[in-house]
Amino acid sequence: MLNIRPATPADDQALWAMLGPVFHAGDTYAVPTDITRDQALDYWLRGSHTAYVAEEGGQILGTAYLCPNHKGNADHVCNAGFVTSPDARGKGVARALLTHVLAQARAAAYGAMQFNFVVSTNTGAIRLWQRNGFQIIGTLPKAFRHPQAGLVDAHVMYQLL
Amino acid sequence: MLNIRPATPADDQALWAMLGPVFHAGDTYAVPTDITRDQALDYWLRGSHTAYVAEEGGQILGTAYLCPNHKGNADHVCNAGFVTSPDARGKGVARALLTHVLAQARAAAYGAMQFNFVVSTNTGAIRLWQRNGFQIIGTLPKAFRHPQAGLVDAHVMYQLL
Repeated sequence: MLNIRPATPADDQALWAMLGPVFHAGDTYAVPTDITRDQALDYWLRGSHTAYVAEEGGQILGTAYLCPNHKGNADHVCNAGFVTSPDARGKGVARALLTHVLAQARAAAYGAMQFNFVVSTNTGAIRLWQRNGFQIIGTLPKAFRHPQAGLVDAHVMYQLL
Repeated sequence: MLNIRPATPADDQALWAMLGPVFHAGDTYAVPTDITRDQALDYWLRGSHTAYVAEEGGQILGTAYLCPNHKGNADHVCNAGFVTSPDARGKGVARALLTHVLAQARAAAYGAMQFNFVVSTNTGAIRLWQRNGFQIIGTLPKAFRHPQAGLVDAHVMYQLL
């Protein structure tokens, strides 16, 4: 039974074990590929971010964050990020996290959710988001240096809530 | 004769005199409308930003910054921001700053320039940027609470360099 709850400091090690390989692979997130544990946890958890973990039987299978995408008169649009454990692929963890974060965003009265930079090769995520109300509202040509595919496009995705 | 040069700490007061009214008006930039002098100068000048000023006869008429738009494998796309003094409107200051920043970006080997959040009511700026190679690659519906116009769209604009 998958349980989604706010992340706590006790989750730091499990989070880094998931985030580290994804960030170091450098094929989905626009973060330094040599990012350290502290930098990665800081990026994921602190500041304006609210972070969640998906756990099953005490094992962390995925994580998400939710935050305002901009400040001032644009802070009614939120942003979110998702990482799932390789062990958990195909178990619906990403979809459960997305559903949870969308519900939290609606409860917080956000008016829209925006993904600023979705690497075009990340087709599984794009499909999942499109099936859950997101549209590609624009494509940034050659905006990402994919380690295997070279220069690829990135999408801006958006959903009114 | 308009001269464009890197900003120095001696420009702080003149920069705040320009940035403050624009940020407090809250109709173009997605920053807190109660932003303080220190926060505004920090936002404009520090971190990964390189800031420039346009001066004529010792008077600062406009400013711009240039920075990477994202990190990691997306840091070949840059971002820029522009503010001109109300006294200088129509004197070509914004265009001169744009030309300068585009040249600096090309010299730094950036592959593209992206504006993440162009409020749709900012038609003068949009026209200037379109005349200088930028395209609207997507429009974010109702992404900005304009103090007079209410909920308005914002554009993502982009140019390969």
